[in-house]
Amino acid sequence: MSNEHKGLQSVIWAGEQLDLLDQRLLPEQIVYLPLVTVEDVWEAIRHLKVRGAPAIGIAAAYGVVLGSRNVESDVEQWLEAVNESAERLATSRPTAVNLFWALDRMKARGAQFAADGLSHSGCKQALLNEAIAIQSEDEETCRLIGEHALTLFEDGMGVLTHCNAGGLATAKYGTALAPFYLAQERGISLRVFADETRPVLQGARLTAFELQQAGVDVTLICDNMAGAVMNKGWVNAVIVGTDRVAANGDVANKIGTYSVAVLAKAHHIPFYVACPMSTIDLNTPDGDQIPIEERDAEEITEGFGKRTAPKGVKVYNPAFDVTPNEYVTAIITEKGVIYPPFNANLKKLFDL
Amino acid sequence: MSNEHKGLQSVIWAGEQLDLLDQRLLPEQIVYLPLVTVEDVWEAIRHLKVRGAPAIGIAAAYGVVLGSRNVESDVEQWLEAVNESAERLATSRPTAVNLFWALDRMKARGAQFAADGLSHSGCKQALLNEAIAIQSEDEETCRLIGEHALTLFEDGMGVLTHCNAGGLATAKYGTALAPFYLAQERGISLRVFADETRPVLQGARLTAFELQQAGVDVTLICDNMAGAVMNKGWVNAVIVGTDRVAANGDVANKIGTYSVAVLAKAHHIPFYVACPMSTIDLNTPDGDQIPIEERDAEEITEGFGKRTAPKGVKVYNPAFDVTPNEYVTAIITEKGVIYPPFNANLKKLFDL
Repeated sequence: MSNEHKGLQSVIWAGEQLDLLDQRLLPEQIVYLPLVTVEDVWEAIRHLKVRGAPAIGIAAAYGVVLGSRNVESDVEQWLEAVNESAERLATSRPTAVNLFWALDRMKARGAQFAADGLSHSGCKQALLNEAIAIQSEDEETCRLIGEHALTLFEDGMGVLTHCNAGGLATAKYGTALAPFYLAQERGISLRVFADETRPVLQGARLTAFELQQAGVDVTLICDNMAGAVMNKGWVNAVIVGTDRVAANGDVANKIGTYSVAVLAKAHHIPFYVACPMSTIDLNTPDGDQIPIEERDAEEITEGFGKRTAPKGVKVYNPAFDVTPNEYVTAIITEKGVIYPPFNANLKKLFDL
Repeated sequence: MSNEHKGLQSVIWAGEQLDLLDQRLLPEQIVYLPLVTVEDVWEAIRHLKVRGAPAIGIAAAYGVVLGSRNVESDVEQWLEAVNESAERLATSRPTAVNLFWALDRMKARGAQFAADGLSHSGCKQALLNEAIAIQSEDEETCRLIGEHALTLFEDGMGVLTHCNAGGLATAKYGTALAPFYLAQERGISLRVFADETRPVLQGARLTAFELQQAGVDVTLICDNMAGAVMNKGWVNAVIVGTDRVAANGDVANKIGTYSVAVLAKAHHIPFYVACPMSTIDLNTPDGDQIPIEERDAEEITEGFGKRTAPKGVKVYNPAFDVTPNEYVTAIITEKGVIYPPFNANLKKLFDL
């Protein structure tokens, strides 16, 4: 398809190293960092060089490869390195469940390869293939999410999104942004409003950037304008990504998502959450059980190289919030559009 | 009173010129600009060197003085200069009604002084006295607003505010921040949450700064965290200033105020608006009639001194929004706390 969406790839396996797009520098600079050790990957996740739940999972999977590929001795030592790398990477950030999902998958497959009696070099290759599979499955998953999400939108609609759940946050297409790219490929016109998403401005720096690159009609607003824009009747739907969906449909996502959800409900606007199945965590019964990372005050007070608040001021800086399921109209995964009651319907999905 | 609140004064008449605190440079630099012409004042208002509805009114009043004090010929020419200065200053910003209120008052008083047969130099002095009176009345007005507002708060409460309606926005004390200063003077402990207030960050740069200077317990948050903080039960009331209250109680204030009001209602938190009587405009029947200024995209895309959004991206940047009266629990003026129905009760205020 000549119209097919092409965007910057955030994570690229380069044969001997992981080339990682430094998302902190976008949109001004496009810089790929060569990552060669587990610590490189840990540091890249911790400091938001790579962000977005699926992309974090993909980067972490390659991180396990990097942490075990140079073990010279034997399969046992190799498997130990796989597990140690995964344990280390699991401490990089607490909220996105895709991180743990990808690491668990890599550990389980590593153990299986060893148990299956693969050679030392066979184990290494098979584990690399697993990471590559996680990445390519994510691309297909995102495309399917986009297909399902697009059934909810019509030509001419205004759709608001928060943070970045786009191609940069995933292997390709993104989750929440996938329907916009598919609409663009098919000549369906949507008007997107992108919240800039303080403090790290993923909406301004990443979402506005990647949609603009793709030719999608995008308007950047400050987070506090979402209500005003809804009140003008410009927004027919909200769609966001998520870092973890609890078993009851409570949704953890970038800070500010909860405010958007409450505003959407007050304006009778549907609020959709798009994510791969790997983001749904049936082991977390509800949103209260999702750990919410708090980050440094400096992200708010001097995030852009210039101090914008008085020195020493007290700051509250949670990276995420939880939107209770009552605000969620539907959850869109690669398996389809799921409506309430989420407790029952999410569980059913895993039996499909 | 030894505890009496002292803060930076935003507008100081310095005998021959107006010394104006450049609020764009706060909190990093404290710089007073010497303004000597009407154009100086127009430019200072337009470019937010002075902001806050009452402070704009005060600066504009002195601007009329500056624009007429050097007229050498006669009273008639002087009065013409008064009127021309006022007409010019009225074009600086469209939303805050205090600007027009102060200019109308200066014009009316100028005409009266001339009609009363004051000498040329007498007219000039009397008009300067009028500007000084507008400023000193505002100080007393703010103190009274604070007294009335404080009756709504109790020791230990959490109160959220948006933008800056503090001492910097007025002659002293502020409107929405006045109860915090009075509480501080009296040993009543309130916990204030200050929205940083994108794009110009008046909450981070000004509110957090002036409350911190005064020793008030203030926590800075990003605008999109207001909902999350309310959902945690940390906020017992919201109080904001306003640039214009329509006859029906609709409230124009800094962009984002509407979102905060909707969030407050959803969390059953009272939403208070504090302002001097001069901000209530009975000639504006409802919020739809209030002109909303739209500002340059660059405030959002490169406001931090660094580009934070892709070049050429479409931006929507309204400086204000309108909060419909149904979200307003009460309006607090120097005359007391006014509850709905606002149409009737605001009108009554002017007959008191």
